[in-house]
Amino acid sequence: MADHYILTGCAGFIGSNLADRLLSQGHRITGIDNFSTGQRRFLESALKHPAFRLVECDLQDLQALIPAFAGGNIVLHLAANADVRFGTEHPRRDLEQNTIATYNVLEAMRANGLRRIGFSSTGSVYGESAVIPTPEDAPFPVQTSLYGASKLAGEGLIAAYCEGFGFQSWIFRFVSILGERYTHGHVFDFYKQLKADPSRLSVLGDGKQRKSYLHVQDCIDAIQIAVSNATEKVNVLNLGVDGYCELNESIGWIAEALGVRPRLQYAGGARGWIGDNPFIFLDTRKMRALGWSPKHTIREGVIKTVEFLRTNEWVMETR
Amino acid sequence: MADHYILTGCAGFIGSNLADRLLSQGHRITGIDNFSTGQRRFLESALKHPAFRLVECDLQDLQALIPAFAGGNIVLHLAANADVRFGTEHPRRDLEQNTIATYNVLEAMRANGLRRIGFSSTGSVYGESAVIPTPEDAPFPVQTSLYGASKLAGEGLIAAYCEGFGFQSWIFRFVSILGERYTHGHVFDFYKQLKADPSRLSVLGDGKQRKSYLHVQDCIDAIQIAVSNATEKVNVLNLGVDGYCELNESIGWIAEALGVRPRLQYAGGARGWIGDNPFIFLDTRKMRALGWSPKHTIREGVIKTVEFLRTNEWVMETR
Repeated sequence: MADHYILTGCAGFIGSNLADRLLSQGHRITGIDNFSTGQRRFLESALKHPAFRLVECDLQDLQALIPAFAGGNIVLHLAANADVRFGTEHPRRDLEQNTIATYNVLEAMRANGLRRIGFSSTGSVYGESAVIPTPEDAPFPVQTSLYGASKLAGEGLIAAYCEGFGFQSWIFRFVSILGERYTHGHVFDFYKQLKADPSRLSVLGDGKQRKSYLHVQDCIDAIQIAVSNATEKVNVLNLGVDGYCELNESIGWIAEALGVRPRLQYAGGARGWIGDNPFIFLDTRKMRALGWSPKHTIREGVIKTVEFLRTNEWVMETR
Repeated sequence: MADHYILTGCAGFIGSNLADRLLSQGHRITGIDNFSTGQRRFLESALKHPAFRLVECDLQDLQALIPAFAGGNIVLHLAANADVRFGTEHPRRDLEQNTIATYNVLEAMRANGLRRIGFSSTGSVYGESAVIPTPEDAPFPVQTSLYGASKLAGEGLIAAYCEGFGFQSWIFRFVSILGERYTHGHVFDFYKQLKADPSRLSVLGDGKQRKSYLHVQDCIDAIQIAVSNATEKVNVLNLGVDGYCELNESIGWIAEALGVRPRLQYAGGARGWIGDNPFIFLDTRKMRALGWSPKHTIREGVIKTVEFLRTNEWVMETR
């Protein structure tokens, strides 16, 4: 059955990929973006589709959101400040764009009688978990980043609306996502550096950080399977591959794909930045039990991302 | 050594008791309150003390907070919308008064170089925990109230400021607090009803809700002991007595203290309201290991509260 999705962050990395997928399946979309980090070029195909309507507005503006949500029957709330690294330089940004924006989305839903919401949260809400791989019911975490704290606040609001107003939710705790339309993160930074000077690469931390990554198409598969198959009032689901890589391995794949052999200059320390978690690996058994499994390895995700950047160097100029 | 405390919510139930205690110990206080629920009469004694300064302002107003925090060396942030029961009637209130207010407090601290903060969180952040008595590292909870969600968001912000800006924090997850200057909650509601008509009492839920309570002076003892003795960067501490009572027991103590025998009319259901947790009992071993133990039983707390209300019926008129 065709649904009418309200898709926030529709011009973003994950949002625009999701828009293309949903349109190809025959759904209608009202896409919302303020183009603060979203890219109009990512919507080139969607904007030509008759079932896609773009509403250019800011999630801080509840009065604009309320009419925009009219007619929808499910919300996928992907809009966010996704910049975990520079949170301490502008702490208000996470509060506004992740916490208050989520509140406004919930209120716009309530005003329109919408009750189903999928939300892009993050594995960063686990802080530095003592339990790895980290399951959804890991011990009550201590936050280590403003980004994680702001997403945790968004999760809490959504769950409270489920209890208080009869909403149903799917809260996805992502590892880092890779793939086509990727516009920030370590592959982006390294590509940019190596393009400027292929002979050397500055690396934050000691290169031994262990991280997990997921390809954007696998991420989208998971969102769709969860919304179809997970039937609790509040469904909290980790998304990631069943493993991790060391940052140094990823550097090797990037260099290999680009045919370069840079000298590596490490900033040192276990963490790349304040609040960086040196070991991220999520337990995804709950999501797998719903019938999902990722089709790409981390290595494939990294290489596809390099290929995307190579053929879309314009994204380097957008930040 | 005398400290200069910045005390938000200084005219509130816990805040005003804490103000009197700190002044009696020779500390200086800058007390902040907007008197939305705080009572000027609770500050009668403090306002006569030369070491107490009152700043009447709203925590939504960061520009007013910044000069108010000047000269302090520790913040005790008690101001809050403490009304867990009516959250769904005005969801913005919890977001503003608990989450955004806490952000503003943290920013006012940062602007003044203050780095130590005690925060009144709540056992409601555990939602309906499967582990009872509930320890601080209980499984990652699902929020069931806007109040709990807004306090969880405040906790997250504080912890992220500890990591990002070198703050130190003491986060207290309270059970319900009872005692002198108590102005809302079940003892207040029942007293008010029985004063109007001693022959009957309307009870939310089935009366079998199991709750834990702590006397305000025991709560203040704990705050002071924790700030002195707990030395982690982020100290999360449950506060409560080592037990619980059934709501029906509490009703019996109240009726006995008032010398009435009301007919009980139950609304029915396990929960008193949307998001009510029918069984709250916190594991307080972490706090006890710091050298604290409560001096009052729940029964004593209830009876002292009834005595306070009997001799201060004016508080009934304030809500």
